[in-house]
Order: sequence, then structure tokens, then C-alpha cells
Amino acid sequence: MSDVLRVTYQLTCRPDEDPEDKARGIALEQSAELPARCIPEHVYDQVVPTIECLEPLDSGAGRYRLVLDFPEAITGLEPTQLINNLFGNISLKSGIRLDEVTWTPNLLRTLGGPRYGVDGVRELLGIGRRPMTSTALKPLGLDTATLAGFCADFARGGIDLIKDDHGLCNQATSPFHERLLACQRAVNEANAETGGHSLYLPNVTAPQGALAERLDAAQEAGCRAVLICPFITGLDTLLWAREHYDMALMAHPAFAGAIAGAEHGIDPALLLGEMTRLFGADMVVYTNAEGRFPTYDQALCDRINDRLWRPLGAAAAGESAIRPALPTPGGGVDAARAPYWAERYGPDVVLLIGGSLYAQGDLVAAARRFQDVVERPEYAG
Amino acid sequence: MSDVLRVTYQLTCRPDEDPEDKARGIALEQSAELPARCIPEHVYDQVVPTIECLEPLDSGAGRYRLVLDFPEAITGLEPTQLINNLFGNISLKSGIRLDEVTWTPNLLRTLGGPRYGVDGVRELLGIGRRPMTSTALKPLGLDTATLAGFCADFARGGIDLIKDDHGLCNQATSPFHERLLACQRAVNEANAETGGHSLYLPNVTAPQGALAERLDAAQEAGCRAVLICPFITGLDTLLWAREHYDMALMAHPAFAGAIAGAEHGIDPALLLGEMTRLFGADMVVYTNAEGRFPTYDQALCDRINDRLWRPLGAAAAGESAIRPALPTPGGGVDAARAPYWAERYGPDVVLLIGGSLYAQGDLVAAARRFQDVVERPEYAG
Repeated sequence: MSDVLRVTYQLTCRPDEDPEDKARGIALEQSAELPARCIPEHVYDQVVPTIECLEPLDSGAGRYRLVLDFPEAITGLEPTQLINNLFGNISLKSGIRLDEVTWTPNLLRTLGGPRYGVDGVRELLGIGRRPMTSTALKPLGLDTATLAGFCADFARGGIDLIKDDHGLCNQATSPFHERLLACQRAVNEANAETGGHSLYLPNVTAPQGALAERLDAAQEAGCRAVLICPFITGLDTLLWAREHYDMALMAHPAFAGAIAGAEHGIDPALLLGEMTRLFGADMVVYTNAEGRFPTYDQALCDRINDRLWRPLGAAAAGESAIRPALPTPGGGVDAARAPYWAERYGPDVVLLIGGSLYAQGDLVAAARRFQDVVERPEYAG
Repeated sequence: MSDVLRVTYQLTCRPDEDPEDKARGIALEQSAELPARCIPEHVYDQVVPTIECLEPLDSGAGRYRLVLDFPEAITGLEPTQLINNLFGNISLKSGIRLDEVTWTPNLLRTLGGPRYGVDGVRELLGIGRRPMTSTALKPLGLDTATLAGFCADFARGGIDLIKDDHGLCNQATSPFHERLLACQRAVNEANAETGGHSLYLPNVTAPQGALAERLDAAQEAGCRAVLICPFITGLDTLLWAREHYDMALMAHPAFAGAIAGAEHGIDPALLLGEMTRLFGADMVVYTNAEGRFPTYDQALCDRINDRLWRPLGAAAAGESAIRPALPTPGGGVDAARAPYWAERYGPDVVLLIGGSLYAQGDLVAAARRFQDVVERPEYAG
């Protein structure tokens, strides 16, 4: 069965929809895209997914669990076609949610997962096992000197990973290259001063064409990690960045919510927790419970963490082991709650706190207080 | 007001949600991403969108129309940041639908729209004003010789635009380069034989890195148009392809339905009709009414057409006029209904029919019958 891609959907059927028809429709739509009678018999068996299971769910009337077995060959082992097979045309229908994928050994090898992963990011920082801190340079509209000043303050306060806000790109108020050099220098100088290890992560999210230029510049400037919005640039750019650059990748979820849906779309835990990891993210930002994004409740956050951490690809012989990645919960986390989250999520996490540090006024002191939390011996792994 | 990007959202508020709070939250989330009190005053005015209008909608309890005026500068005039500003972080909230954007002259210039547009595609085909035909090579799983044979048959039947099914990529059964050359040759030979003008459109959708290689190969093989899935590769790849290649772009909507939503997401007419056109698509495939995709009803299809055709950018002085693009309704259109759609949609359309031609058995005859419909004098413009 190693060349079979097993995919689970949750169907929500209207009263006039027959679940079996819907299931057969999905199988055809995601492969041959032709009425069954127009598909040559020898091709049918090789391309059309088989319905492995279709059963009603307890969760409510009209809900079904559909399991399809896709022949791996129809993906051509290409990440773009994989997304197309999983949720391309059926995205234009209704009541279909992509919930689970059992990746084949070949796909695991092709996608490959994080270059650094949990342990690799710690090595980049030169630290032992403990939660990590992250914060963001913001707001957009500030000039480079001010942003670089924040960067220096956060680094002096010991923050592990200091990233551009994902809304900072190449605005006239702080052009990308200018900010890259100024912030990287500010972090280097602060590190030299304090003996610290802070990293600056520029936001390299950019249109096709400019993306490579920004990643080149980041690598040349000595950055060891970058921020990217893969749901805007295309998930496959993660893979490409991992292969062409030796920097850890922090994925930002902007636009991901347009894709993830309750009754239609992709389960957010699969999308953010598993697909993003598999496509190469070392750190995955998501909107934590208790923050500004109530759609992401605690149960969902726990499911995302589980997907980022759990063993993937090592169970069966011939499969590549995919490194675990770092949950990076953010989106309005209160600095006062840092101990709670460090305790709850354990050492393999990056706590991302932005606004709540700025609100404290003295950034160095705010950063130090935050950093002191994660360095408490009780949170070490 | 020419540097103000006016954006309209539809809010769906839960009983415990205050619409004004929600509106203010969106304005901050999509710009500064900080609590208002942490934003320096001189920056606030320059980056945070102002609430131009917030009013209840007749359409139901809890629905509001929100109009935000964004300072254009925060987009940095970058297409990726534009998407982030329009629907980045708020995608992770609920009950927010992006409905309308009034583009600024600078954004219209930067995005630029189709290279060919309606008239340009007709010129590529060397035809007068009439509806155009399109069909797809399918199913995946067939070998190249068979697909090229279909291509020859469709070209002999006179089909204007013969495209790869969007699920054909680089599978072992028909590798991209082999298929490209065989299908392009088949179309050239058929054209030479019949005096016809059919074009073959290879599917260049591919992961970052391979995309350029496939577009290069298509251009070198003499293709004048290609198929791409911009909702998988990233919308910005349309812009890049338009700028770097002299080929018309047909956009396929695979995965678009994951983004477009009734209560949360992007209005499908804005997404498929306007954004795709503005980003450079000459032809936009969507799932037509009466086909396999009931979510797209006639009213929505009409709205998509309107967005693809209507004047854009020429009204105000200093704005670039954006060429109209070609609606390409497909997704299960019955060949017997071709006259109805030609009549209903008029001459500036590409009718895409796949399965219903294959179901007729004799592809040359089926293609000819379909082509004869659009060539009837009564449908000429």
C-alpha cells in the first residue's frame, strides 16, 4: 500500500445530496475529471481514487467521513499537483473538508519537512532545551532607525528570535534592504555587547522574482532564519526556500484562514500543523487561544501542536523521518501569561509576544522579563 | 483620494460581537497590528485605515457593510503585501468577507491586468468577434501519444484553445516536456492540414523553480498561451509570468474555492473576476451554472463576467486602463447547451467543454459541432 495516498474528508451533505454520489463525485473530480463512462478501463484503475470508507459521523445529521485511496502516481510527486489532488476542484463545491492525509514514503521524501526543526533551531541559538521567545518589529510606517532601535532593545533583553512584523515588506518608510542591514547589525552589536545569541528574522515574503533576491540578501547579511507567509506566496515556496538556502524558516499564517474552514476547506490543524511542517517550515506561527483570534480555541491549538511535534514518517520502513517543528503561538498573547504558556506547552515551543511588550514602554526591561520566564529552570526539558 | 485604497467588507457579527469594535479591530489588524495606544501618533494616521462607513445590511441580522480607507503606502505597491493587507490576518478571524476594492492608480499601474485581454486573444487566434471554444486533454493517466492524438482531433475539429487538463503535470505516464512537444506538434500539423488556427495550452503549474523552466519550454516550443493554477502557485505568479513571457495566460480556479466564502473569505466574483484579471489573466476559467459545481449559480457567474468585462482603471485621470479578460465558463457544460451559452454570454467569452465532447466518441466530429456553434453568424459581435 506504500504507493497509496490515503485521504480523509468530512462531508456535510444537504438533505438533497446523496453521500455516495458525493463521494464518487469527489473521487472523479480530483483525478480523471471525466464521467466514469468516458474513462478507458485501464486508466480508470490507475488514476481514480477508490472509496475506502464512507460512514456517517455522530457529530450531526448529514455529516460523513469519507476515506479515499489516491494512487500516488497521479501527483507526479509535485507539491503543486499534490495540493490540486487533495483540494483543487472540490474547493469549488461545498461541504467538503480535508481532514487527514496519510503520506506515502515517496511524498515524505519529496516534501521532506524542516531542515532544522526543533533541535536545529536550538542549535542555531546555541541554547539548551527550553521554550524560546520571539517578538515582532512593528508597526509598519516607522522608519528603519526606529525599527532597528527596537531590534537592539529586544536583543539586549535577550529575546531569542526577533522577526519583522509580517506586514513589513519594502515600504518607502523602511525599504527591505535598508532594514535588513540595519536590524542585522543592531542584533549583532547587541549580541557582542551582552554575549547573547538573538537572531533577526527579516520578512522575505515577496512577489515571485523578488523572493529569491530577498532570501539571497538575508543569507548574505548573515541571517540564520527568515519569516515568510507561505499562504500568500504559495506553500511550495517553503520547499524551494529550504532547498536553496541554509536558513531556518518561520511560517506566518496570514491568509491561511481563507483556506481553513469548519464545514468546507482544510482542517486548520492539518494545514498549519502538518502541511506547513512537511513543506519545510521549522517554526509555524499560529493564533493562540486567549488572544485576538477567538476562532482558534485551545483544542485547535493543541491539535496544531500535536501535528507539529508528533512522529511523522519514521514508523514504516523506507519512510523518511520528518523533523518535528516548533509551534509559535502568537496573535495577542499577554506577556503576563508567558509562564502559563511555557508550562502548558512545554519546552519545544516558541512563544511569540509583540504588542504586550510594546505596551510596557521600556522594551529592554519588557524583553528581559519575558526572556527570564523561559529561562526558568523548571521549564527546561 | 488617489493614494487611498478603499476596501469594502461584509461583516457577520455574533450576538456578543459589537460591530464597531470588530471594524476597529480589522483596521488595526490589517495595518499596525498593535493596540492603538502603542502606536506613535504620527504613524497612526499614516498607516491605520480609517472607517469610512459602517452600516447594517438589509440582508440579515448581524450583517454589516464596512468600508475602510487604506493608505496605499502600506502596501509598498507589492502584490503579496496587498493580499496581506486585504485579507491576511483577518482571514484567521470569522465573519469577514472581502467584497470590493477600489484600486488606486498606482496599484492599477503596478498590477496592470492582462497582456492580451479579449482582443489580444482574438488576434492570437486570427479571428473576428465571436465566442471562442476551448477543451481539455484528459484524463490524466493516458500516455502522451493518446493525449496528442486527442489534441490533433480537437484541432482538426477547429477548437480554438486546446488546453491540458489542469491535473496533467509531470506524471510518469505523460511527462511535461514530452507532452508539450507532442501536443504542440499535433496542433501545428492539424492547423497546416486544415488552415486552422487552434492553439495548444500546456499546463505550466509547477512548484517554484520548475515554473520558469516550464514556461521557458512552452515559449520555445512556440506556444502562444498557457494554463496556470494561480491559487496554488500564488496569485503573484500571474504577474511574473505576464512580465517575463509573451504568452496569453489562462487561469484555472483550482483551490480558489478554499478562499472564496459566503460569510468568511473573499467574494468569488472579486477573487476570480477582478483580482485574477488585475493580476494578469487573459482568460479566467470558472465553474459555470448548470454544471458539476452548483455552488456557482447563474447570478454569481454573471457577476464574474461583469468583473472581467467592465471598464477598470480608465475612468479617472492618471489611471491605467486595464484590459478586459475572457470569462471561460466550464466545469461540466453540456455541448448541447453551447448555443444557449453563446447566446447568453455573447461574443466575449471562451466556452470550455470537456467531458461532453469525449462522451460523443468521435472527437473530430464533436469538436466540429461545438465549433460550428460559435461560428454561427448570429453570435458574431
